[in-house]
Amino acid sequence: MNESSAPLTFYFDYISPYAYLGFTQIHAVAERHGREVIALPVLFAALLNHNGHKGPAEIPSKREYVFRDVLRIGARLGERIEPPPSHPFNPLLALRVTLAAAQGDERRRVIAALYRATWGEGANGGPGIMDEAGIRAALAGAGVDADALLAGAVTPQVKTALRDSTTAALEAGVFGVPSVIADGELFWGVESFGHLERFLRGEDPVQAEDLERWRDLPASARRPGSQS
Amino acid sequence: MNESSAPLTFYFDYISPYAYLGFTQIHAVAERHGREVIALPVLFAALLNHNGHKGPAEIPSKREYVFRDVLRIGARLGERIEPPPSHPFNPLLALRVTLAAAQGDERRRVIAALYRATWGEGANGGPGIMDEAGIRAALAGAGVDADALLAGAVTPQVKTALRDSTTAALEAGVFGVPSVIADGELFWGVESFGHLERFLRGEDPVQAEDLERWRDLPASARRPGSQS
Repeated sequence: MNESSAPLTFYFDYISPYAYLGFTQIHAVAERHGREVIALPVLFAALLNHNGHKGPAEIPSKREYVFRDVLRIGARLGERIEPPPSHPFNPLLALRVTLAAAQGDERRRVIAALYRATWGEGANGGPGIMDEAGIRAALAGAGVDADALLAGAVTPQVKTALRDSTTAALEAGVFGVPSVIADGELFWGVESFGHLERFLRGEDPVQAEDLERWRDLPASARRPGSQS
Repeated sequence: MNESSAPLTFYFDYISPYAYLGFTQIHAVAERHGREVIALPVLFAALLNHNGHKGPAEIPSKREYVFRDVLRIGARLGERIEPPPSHPFNPLLALRVTLAAAQGDERRRVIAALYRATWGEGANGGPGIMDEAGIRAALAGAGVDADALLAGAVTPQVKTALRDSTTAALEAGVFGVPSVIADGELFWGVESFGHLERFLRGEDPVQAEDLERWRDLPASARRPGSQS
């Protein structure tokens, strides 16, 4: 058993259906292990830019695959996936609205409503969350003050908070979404939550000496044209 | 139940520990469903070049994560992972030696021996497979004619065969390794083998109409600086 009771930090962006599926699971994972969830929106595009990397939807064959994959993972988890009206879309306002909500129950309700309107059953024919009208429609009935959140979203404090959460993610080693940081350890992707649960039970098989050997490995070849 | 008995095509490169873990599983998966395995080596670097993409080991934070991830998946599968003497390394000669072996039992024994010397228990302190001496050591005791395979590896026919298998992979929608093509359907990554088995049982939840809607989605935003 892992003795820590520190919160799990859940990094996500609405653009990612994998992050949506992660959100549908993370609170149950946390509750099974007596942990809280701190949900922090990040701009996935900024993570990609930082690493000079491409997102799954930016490679045509991978984009084709991703939707099949999320439908299959969703079916296993009992979560129906519906595509939003466009993709990629600009998630910036939705991410800022999320940070304008107080951490805890209010933020959780905002995220659930915005995700439902993006990838959940509420996405079916809905307007998505790429503009104020869509966000307002998504938040109707969520028990939050949409006017106050939309007003908060355009303040310098909230804009700075989104940059800060993205920087914090990068500093924690995050390169994609969803990512969970548990006691300093990174778990990437909804498919990693089984590993996360073993870690939370104190049953992680990773040993420090294995990691040392990997870190010390020299490269003996480089891909022509690669920058790293 | 899926009525097809067509072989499963397994695309791999020795550079990938995920592909190693996939190889440890794919024959058992195929046998459970009355299928044969056609194992085709591809040059992963060529897939990345084709898509202008980076491999997991080319992003520092992702490289850190990958080794933890493969140790965890390996532990779940009962497969111990040992790192090779260097990484990335040039897998070209090993891939060509593999294609010089006849499809079927001979090739399977070659792949098992070369993979064991790369990521399996045989990697522990061994010379790896990045040159002729390493490959010769790896094949000792595998019941194959290493001299003949090394001679075959440098023929124009085998060099062409590796280019052809990589092209065939790209045409089948493959963007990473391991990938399995089953009845035209792609499964990427050892973590997708559960989905593959459901597909082989005729229980794939993916519906054609879901895919049509996804393919028809317009983009309403593009990441600044992205080429796609």
